[in-house]
Amino acid sequence: MEDLHGYYVEDLSEGMSASFGKTVTDADIVLFAGISGDTNPVHLNDDFAKKTMFKGRIAHGIFGASLISAVLGTKLPGPGCIYVNQTLRFKAPVRAGETLIASVTVKSINAAKKLVTLDTVCTVDDKTVIEGEAVLMVPSKG
Amino acid sequence: MEDLHGYYVEDLSEGMSASFGKTVTDADIVLFAGISGDTNPVHLNDDFAKKTMFKGRIAHGIFGASLISAVLGTKLPGPGCIYVNQTLRFKAPVRAGETLIASVTVKSINAAKKLVTLDTVCTVDDKTVIEGEAVLMVPSKG
Amino acid sequence: MEDLHGYYVEDLSEGMSASFGKTVTDADIVLFAGISGDTNPVHLNDDFAKKTMFKGRIAHGIFGASLISAVLGTKLPGPGCIYVNQTLRFKAPVRAGETLIASVTVKSINAAKKLVTLDTVCTVDDKTVIEGEAVLMVPSKG
Amino acid sequence: MEDLHGYYVEDLSEGMSASFGKTVTDADIVLFAGISGDTNPVHLNDDFAKKTMFKGRIAHGIFGASLISAVLGTKLPGPGCIYVNQTLRFKAPVRAGETLIASVTVKSINAAKKLVTLDTVCTVDDKTVIEGEAVLMVPSKG
Repeated sequence: MEDLHGYYVEDLSEGMSASFGKTVTDADIVLFAGISGDTNPVHLNDDFAKKTMFKGRIAHGIFGASLISAVLGTKLPGPGCIYVNQTLRFKAPVRAGETLIASVTVKSINAAKKLVTLDTVCTVDDKTVIEGEAVLMVPSKG
Repeated sequence: MEDLHGYYVEDLSEGMSASFGKTVTDADIVLFAGISGDTNPVHLNDDFAKKTMFKGRIAHGIFGASLISAVLGTKLPGPGCIYVNQTLRFKAPVRAGETLIASVTVKSINAAKKLVTLDTVCTVDDKTVIEGEAVLMVPSKG
Repeated sequence: MEDLHGYYVEDLSEGMSASFGKTVTDADIVLFAGISGDTNPVHLNDDFAKKTMFKGRIAHGIFGASLISAVLGTKLPGPGCIYVNQTLRFKAPVRAGETLIASVTVKSINAAKKLVTLDTVCTVDDKTVIEGEAVLMVPSKG
Repeated sequence: MEDLHGYYVEDLSEGMSASFGKTVTDADIVLFAGISGDTNPVHLNDDFAKKTMFKGRIAHGIFGASLISAVLGTKLPGPGCIYVNQTLRFKAPVRAGETLIASVTVKSINAAKKLVTLDTVCTVDDKTVIEGEAVLMVPSKG
């Protein structure tokens, strides 16, 4: 199993970064509604959504957050880390057809407590759509 | 479309609350992995997960956050609101078979800016597994 | 759990109505085919569907019925009700990209038997595509 | 495309029957909730469902109907038919893990109008859970 493990806290340094992206599809939106129970018509109903400030259907904000979780949980720090805290500021909507990129960058490391803080941002065409910060507990090799 | 709309800011008062719950199934975990790209083995791989402090597979933390989004987007404040900010503190793991309840309570209202702050909490058997705060912009009737 | 419950039979009166709508996507059609097993080419195969009277792929009729179920089960009467009977008359096809609105209206109430009859209709751009009637058993407060 | 076509009205006779079955899984229930928007807690929330007369989570009634649609649309009469009418009487709940069989039997044929009426029934372990009748328009070879 060891080869499935991600970084240990000793392996990390400030400025390290990683990203994961995917193109948002209607399938993602329909499935996200199903597993979350979030059937808000702004995500599912064009007629309703066109009358909002968004002028059409948008993806769930937390769907963007789930891509941040993907980077943290699979790349940096990767498997073995424990999610402690996440802040999310939703800056702009994301729509089906757009490619959403989640990027994380190590901001600070508390080696004694094994806590790592990362900047977390989601972008579409280099425009920030979500920004925030994550704190993870990362195992030590010792 | 009007009957699909949720609360307007004038309709809200401190202390109002709503909740949504669902039993976490393996289907939720598999589908969440698929749409998020978060294939961390702690969620998908029993052999790996048993060797972690969780002693078995756990649901994605952001899956819990998605149930908070469901309450906010469908019940309180409901359709028409705009997600501005969410903080999440992950307190305990959630496993398939457990029933996860997301509850939100109006904490404060800034009518001038149409901003509403809610306490957001997820529980399993009355134990808090996620806690945090959401800020939403809620339309005015005027 | 009480706050998750819908209307009780004493809360209902003739003429009350509710609706739920969603824009039909290819994802809905593909997923509906997958879970139902209804792989009729009129839903999945453009080449076949173009040679039918529909001149192109259409959504499953029962997909429309599922939106009626969504209104009944989440809004009116809402959680706690028991589905007894549903009639469905399919009047016109529904295609991907169209926004399908399911609306239900309380038609009659048999308080002694706790049975509520509702008119159920699905529309696209105010054109009726499905019509029928539902009977539900709705719990009493007593 | 002709080889994809189902029965023509001239091919049908009273008493012909066909069936389709599948084992209901949590994945079906989660996905059905997503595409229908029907997040009624009796389907998704064990804590809520245990306090109902069903004593646990049940599948959506219309999910059963979707299996009837699968038999009609893929086997008898099969591709090319047009769904005109369906009645559904929900007799008993269906749960994850149960194998649901939808069966249809030709009851009467109006060759002049190309309308075929079928008995439609869903069973679990030979117990009827849904019964009703379907009317379809079936193309003529002529």
